[in-house]
Amino acid sequence: MGVRVAVAGASGYAGGELLRLIAGHPEFDLVAATAHTQAGSPVTAVHPQLAGLDLTLAQTDPATLADADLVFLALPHGQSAALAAQLPASVKVVDLGADFRLRDADAWARYYGGPHAGTWTYGLPELPGQRARIAAASRVANTGCYAATITLALAPLIAAGVASPDDVVVVAASGTSGAGRAAKAHLLGSEVMGDLSPYKVGAHQHVPEIKQATGATSLSMTPVLAPMPRGILATVTAVPTGAADPREVLAAAYADAPFVHVLPPGAWPHTAATAGSNSCHLQAGVDADSGRIIVVSALDNLGKGAAGQAVQCANLMYGLAETTGLSVYGVAP
Amino acid sequence: MGVRVAVAGASGYAGGELLRLIAGHPEFDLVAATAHTQAGSPVTAVHPQLAGLDLTLAQTDPATLADADLVFLALPHGQSAALAAQLPASVKVVDLGADFRLRDADAWARYYGGPHAGTWTYGLPELPGQRARIAAASRVANTGCYAATITLALAPLIAAGVASPDDVVVVAASGTSGAGRAAKAHLLGSEVMGDLSPYKVGAHQHVPEIKQATGATSLSMTPVLAPMPRGILATVTAVPTGAADPREVLAAAYADAPFVHVLPPGAWPHTAATAGSNSCHLQAGVDADSGRIIVVSALDNLGKGAAGQAVQCANLMYGLAETTGLSVYGVAP
Amino acid sequence: MGVRVAVAGASGYAGGELLRLIAGHPEFDLVAATAHTQAGSPVTAVHPQLAGLDLTLAQTDPATLADADLVFLALPHGQSAALAAQLPASVKVVDLGADFRLRDADAWARYYGGPHAGTWTYGLPELPGQRARIAAASRVANTGCYAATITLALAPLIAAGVASPDDVVVVAASGTSGAGRAAKAHLLGSEVMGDLSPYKVGAHQHVPEIKQATGATSLSMTPVLAPMPRGILATVTAVPTGAADPREVLAAAYADAPFVHVLPPGAWPHTAATAGSNSCHLQAGVDADSGRIIVVSALDNLGKGAAGQAVQCANLMYGLAETTGLSVYGVAP
Amino acid sequence: MGVRVAVAGASGYAGGELLRLIAGHPEFDLVAATAHTQAGSPVTAVHPQLAGLDLTLAQTDPATLADADLVFLALPHGQSAALAAQLPASVKVVDLGADFRLRDADAWARYYGGPHAGTWTYGLPELPGQRARIAAASRVANTGCYAATITLALAPLIAAGVASPDDVVVVAASGTSGAGRAAKAHLLGSEVMGDLSPYKVGAHQHVPEIKQATGATSLSMTPVLAPMPRGILATVTAVPTGAADPREVLAAAYADAPFVHVLPPGAWPHTAATAGSNSCHLQAGVDADSGRIIVVSALDNLGKGAAGQAVQCANLMYGLAETTGLSVYGVAP
Repeated sequence: MGVRVAVAGASGYAGGELLRLIAGHPEFDLVAATAHTQAGSPVTAVHPQLAGLDLTLAQTDPATLADADLVFLALPHGQSAALAAQLPASVKVVDLGADFRLRDADAWARYYGGPHAGTWTYGLPELPGQRARIAAASRVANTGCYAATITLALAPLIAAGVASPDDVVVVAASGTSGAGRAAKAHLLGSEVMGDLSPYKVGAHQHVPEIKQATGATSLSMTPVLAPMPRGILATVTAVPTGAADPREVLAAAYADAPFVHVLPPGAWPHTAATAGSNSCHLQAGVDADSGRIIVVSALDNLGKGAAGQAVQCANLMYGLAETTGLSVYGVAP
Repeated sequence: MGVRVAVAGASGYAGGELLRLIAGHPEFDLVAATAHTQAGSPVTAVHPQLAGLDLTLAQTDPATLADADLVFLALPHGQSAALAAQLPASVKVVDLGADFRLRDADAWARYYGGPHAGTWTYGLPELPGQRARIAAASRVANTGCYAATITLALAPLIAAGVASPDDVVVVAASGTSGAGRAAKAHLLGSEVMGDLSPYKVGAHQHVPEIKQATGATSLSMTPVLAPMPRGILATVTAVPTGAADPREVLAAAYADAPFVHVLPPGAWPHTAATAGSNSCHLQAGVDADSGRIIVVSALDNLGKGAAGQAVQCANLMYGLAETTGLSVYGVAP
Repeated sequence: MGVRVAVAGASGYAGGELLRLIAGHPEFDLVAATAHTQAGSPVTAVHPQLAGLDLTLAQTDPATLADADLVFLALPHGQSAALAAQLPASVKVVDLGADFRLRDADAWARYYGGPHAGTWTYGLPELPGQRARIAAASRVANTGCYAATITLALAPLIAAGVASPDDVVVVAASGTSGAGRAAKAHLLGSEVMGDLSPYKVGAHQHVPEIKQATGATSLSMTPVLAPMPRGILATVTAVPTGAADPREVLAAAYADAPFVHVLPPGAWPHTAATAGSNSCHLQAGVDADSGRIIVVSALDNLGKGAAGQAVQCANLMYGLAETTGLSVYGVAP
Repeated sequence: MGVRVAVAGASGYAGGELLRLIAGHPEFDLVAATAHTQAGSPVTAVHPQLAGLDLTLAQTDPATLADADLVFLALPHGQSAALAAQLPASVKVVDLGADFRLRDADAWARYYGGPHAGTWTYGLPELPGQRARIAAASRVANTGCYAATITLALAPLIAAGVASPDDVVVVAASGTSGAGRAAKAHLLGSEVMGDLSPYKVGAHQHVPEIKQATGATSLSMTPVLAPMPRGILATVTAVPTGAADPREVLAAAYADAPFVHVLPPGAWPHTAATAGSNSCHLQAGVDADSGRIIVVSALDNLGKGAAGQAVQCANLMYGLAETTGLSVYGVAP
């Protein structure tokens, strides 16, 4: 008998990816998937890619979820806290939303608004010492998708004193699933195909999370919507603060990380190679003209950027191998 | 110790998908991957999505392959026969090429040219009695991607006397990976994005294979290249020959097939729901104006249309559960 | 002083394309663009591609439109009739909706529902004798996008007795702009990219219009949504009824049509080559196995399939050269 | 009788766009289109979007070109100089290649290699005083596509003392047509769809051109290949050097430029809105966390980034209105 798992917010894209991963996980048993307006529909009516999965979406309520050993919350930002508060302490929870990521209540108020719910163990296992903290936790706040992409690229460089925490400049482009599944006119296929479109320029809500996780003290982060369903590519530039080779610092930091691949010299990450996987690909170099360090980071926003990362954390919470039920390899082309 | 597996033609798209599936297969050990001009390169230089797989492409030669228990041939059409002839009988072989699919040597000569190599057990497990034949075989000819898509839609209807074998009309659109990985100008991203482009109109080489596998006696099949990397959608129309509901015939035919899903009434297959999986989605109806039966069939041309199907056959050849190492669920969005 | 032109329904995709064409038309002056919920917005807020066009969307009402010499109606099907009835006879009208296309009131009721509004001159100039009828008309019903694509491919063959009007089988794939601009979840970019998705299988509302315009007596038409913003590719197959070469029949029929190009032998139409233009590309052949005639037709659903066609009709209505303000050439890649 | 125009290098993407624009230009007559391996083919065999244009590609040689009044050179970088040297002084030339853009021979040698051919009038009409210089020139070096995008965003800010010329950081993503039409495996549709892929990281050859044109003294420019045929989106960040509003500076700089649109406050440029046009869309703001100026610039790499810009320059060289034969409006969706 495996771990009994429930997914709240199962009708969205991260929710669907969670269902796919759990359905293929050898130690997790999917016992409930809940939704709001879609409650009552078969899972396959909402996620046709899961044809063969015989389950009906239940209404999201604490009683349904409390019956599970492990609950993934894939709700809109700001909705996790109220629900989590109603779950017994014995239920382990991984929250894919932003509610419990920030330590700084002011930053929460400034970027998200409303009262700060608190701070849970941060769900990025590759940060130093973080695997043990996650393994010991019963509540984990999964990283944001941009935050995962950028933190994996930058945190070791700042920690090693190789890159200045000041004046970090990032442009990060995301596939459209990162914008969610709500029917909005600017996300129609007719609008996004053939289009690159910046948004929330100068004021993205992941900025405080990224600063907290990387140690950056000044961060310009411009997000761009890209014409593809999945994937994030972050170009991270920083002022060097020493002579060390940034690529070697990254390679050392992730030598034992099964999902983070510092590519061979000369090979640069690209998003398609990570699609459907839980891997992050990294490469670093130095700009010939400006001398800035450039790190490029690619991952699947629904994989290592959301559902895959959440399962990785849950594996650690249950003492399983980190890779259980997850794929290192991308689905390409 | 698992089955020792080699892949010949590992640098192409079907080859890359085979490597991905074998690397994740619990009973198969990948011992060799061979190529031609790419021999000597790390697998990850050719397939960056396999970052973490530490293997170098070897030259395609019989000695290398003969060391394996099981060989997958993912070579251009017409190149399998010579290689297969040099492999010992003790090595099981699944050929993803067309060389051994046809029973009719004349049809081979007409559509492919050159001498007919022979006929192997046809690798479509869902045909009546075919699982047992594949399980007993040491040489299997995997279906073509269009043939798999169309045969799963049509064969049960003709066999049941529900659809006429005469005057079958098919339009089938494929993602670009079906056209292979050779650098050709008309397959450039700039050309294919935003474009639907018919090809080999009126004379596709899969026609005799489809007729053989379905029992159709007259078949118009128009292939179209579609702006997506993966997936085939076939619209199959046929003249009805009775009052039976074609959907029910299909549902009965595939009641025990783990990878073939006849969708609930009202839901029509679409390719994205099958991407990355070994599933085929089907739906059937009757056209209001013409009375023709319309069956729509969708699958991943590299999955159920090539590499996944090949692994499914190999599972049967080794007495494993048909689904071992394969996913029923698609990666979407 | 040019013709004073207004566009009702200017916030949709066909409306936006009309604005683009009119803004570049040497004889038409855009005096009003109207909308419903978007009334009051600058045109450029709704159509950012028209940056530089200084106009505010007005509310759609008869008084605003009656002030123009020429009105294009780009409204949802069923909404044109009421509005048109309130426009004075002196105002010329081209309706891009379906309201006035059908001669058969029963067919209207069956496929669209509600009372039949009447029948206007059919706006497909390339039909025999139709240019003169359009030139003499003050009310023109523009063709549907699928109808234009298929009629141009098929009508001359049936008229010439080369193709049987019975048992015509069509599969036609359209870019997503054909599905309109309303925010619907199944039209999100995340859903449509990488996807081919059939819809309204066996019962599309363009069927009676196509039968009326082509003379077909039995028609199976399966529409498919394709992952591109624009373009329709129709594969039309028909039973031959004589020995004549279908390509030659088409070439003769369109010898003097500036927008319909029968491609050189061996070249098949593809949608990207028609994007942004008012051209339709055609090619015909005979299927080797079945003997069926195959005609492939490609055009831009917003161009020759909607707004371009409407401007072409308006040119005729004003005695201008058919090509005024329209491009024969596509924007590719 | 119009200006007699020839295009050398007409088989590539920029060449095809030149043909399209010239064919629709009221004052230019296309008298020759030349190519290398494609010489002898009808233009429409190479550019099917130009169906209706009856012209055969000639071999690229000076005699053919010298017969024209105006020659556009759309050749690979490094090939224009030899050809231009053989054209009589009476023939006006616009070179779309890089050969004559740089003033600094060392920068040429470092980024392109080989001897420096010289320096022609720089073909970016919106730079201060540049319209008059272009009007007076008989030889013009058209801007590079990235250079046009970035220079329009940045040059006025540095010139006005609003942005520091030091430590400019740019990430710019381009559609695949920017990578040319040569058949390369990494540009196949299967590879580029669903993919964002950085290239030439830290060392792009447009860097010296951009520094020369903008006055930047330190520039990090990371180019990314995006899954769309056309369009460039540049995110330009710079350290502010005063309190002036960067958007107002840009608006003032381009008040009289018909093709450069500083969008209304709150609206950010996106590439699709510029497709097929000669427009550049701009917006500027200040990053909340870092205080950096962020300017986003979008244009069509084949339009304002290549062929459109070249025609705009040619219009000035012939005393025509700058906008003759060019569209301000994009083709969208």
